[in-house]
Amino acid sequence: MNYRMELQYEGTRYNGWQRQDSTENTIQGKLEQVLCRMTGERIEVQGAGRTDSGVHAKMQVANFHTEKERRPEDIRNYMNRYLPEDIAVTFCTEVSERFHSRLNAKGKVYQYRIWNSEKPNVFERRWVYEYPDKLDIQAMESAAGFLMGTHDFKSFCTRKKMKKKTVRTITGIRIEVFGEEVRITYEGDGFLYHMVRILTGTLIEVGIHERSPKDILHIFEEKDRSAAGFLVPAKGLTLLNVMY
Amino acid sequence: MNYRMELQYEGTRYNGWQRQDSTENTIQGKLEQVLCRMTGERIEVQGAGRTDSGVHAKMQVANFHTEKERRPEDIRNYMNRYLPEDIAVTFCTEVSERFHSRLNAKGKVYQYRIWNSEKPNVFERRWVYEYPDKLDIQAMESAAGFLMGTHDFKSFCTRKKMKKKTVRTITGIRIEVFGEEVRITYEGDGFLYHMVRILTGTLIEVGIHERSPKDILHIFEEKDRSAAGFLVPAKGLTLLNVMY
Repeated sequence: MNYRMELQYEGTRYNGWQRQDSTENTIQGKLEQVLCRMTGERIEVQGAGRTDSGVHAKMQVANFHTEKERRPEDIRNYMNRYLPEDIAVTFCTEVSERFHSRLNAKGKVYQYRIWNSEKPNVFERRWVYEYPDKLDIQAMESAAGFLMGTHDFKSFCTRKKMKKKTVRTITGIRIEVFGEEVRITYEGDGFLYHMVRILTGTLIEVGIHERSPKDILHIFEEKDRSAAGFLVPAKGLTLLNVMY
Repeated sequence: MNYRMELQYEGTRYNGWQRQDSTENTIQGKLEQVLCRMTGERIEVQGAGRTDSGVHAKMQVANFHTEKERRPEDIRNYMNRYLPEDIAVTFCTEVSERFHSRLNAKGKVYQYRIWNSEKPNVFERRWVYEYPDKLDIQAMESAAGFLMGTHDFKSFCTRKKMKKKTVRTITGIRIEVFGEEVRITYEGDGFLYHMVRILTGTLIEVGIHERSPKDILHIFEEKDRSAAGFLVPAKGLTLLNVMY
């Protein structure tokens, strides 16, 4: 049996999605613990996106294989009873044997929230980044225009050991202002390690006129991390949706 | 000098507004600590509403007297630097010697948020009350109609030692549904101890057809706490506004 779950979590307390040998304080680890308890089997959970330490999810997708058939609602209810209160299964359904939440994902939506004010934000402080300097939204929007489309995003990622393909397609960047909040939503076929956070840092540097929107073209040419903007904190980032 | 502050706080970690001798873990206590540090004086902060343990505020008003004149922005910035991150001063201004945040208040707005779903609410769990049974909003609205106006709300409060006047005027009750959330907003000239939470518990009992809307008239007549509904948890309650 193969089950697909939709998940929500507040990433604040966790070392990201991916289970590590050294620590069990990961989202994947917590889910697997509860599933082992339920099934008596050793379960491996596959997540669509391996969110970093401190990153949140409003809609993450994950799947797991198990020998015994169960009602999907029973799985959801069991999980929600035993998971910590900052992780929840919002939906569970049986899927075909071959479904793989990461390999089958066609696109993802991430949102970065900037609290662009000198006042503290008491209620949303765990998932917004406080950046008080005034941002020029129009300049950021024209920079976003240069970012959209298919490019080699090598400059916009922190290099990991393995050399992988760094070409990605961004199908949409929406910048919205809600009162004192600036919310940037990215939609694309996939995102490299730290990519959304470096894109956001670069857009902020355009927003405070440290760069011009056209700098983006230069950053693409350099193919070097140091050409791009700063890495914004993880806590402002939320995985909003996964498309199949 | 007399300064008026507008405050926000997440009440989760605190024993309510009012400073107690036994513990300093109150909103008033935290504010006074920082003000003492700033002024070197013993400062007493007066709050418009003495919110209970666990109750939040999006707009609480408080004032304090001090000997030395300071720029209100400097007070605000100093406070926000030294206050814990779940308490914030959003606005500060100098006011006339005679202004008293509680005695001059003409009305208050409280909001109670019910998460009316079986699914957990990961991101708002600290300020919504999870109540999964389906609520009949129309029935609740007609009960709310009986609650509005000037009445003796003795049945809707937990008795404290002193016998005080228990007549209050509710000028508005708005019940809104946002997806799986039911939000009840109360506006009135003042609210008795536990009153908003007992009103909400009573409306919920109407919403699940344990009572009829007309029961409200009977509860008023009884003038006894046991006639009214249950006390809903503090965490769903937020002080939204104070009117002068």
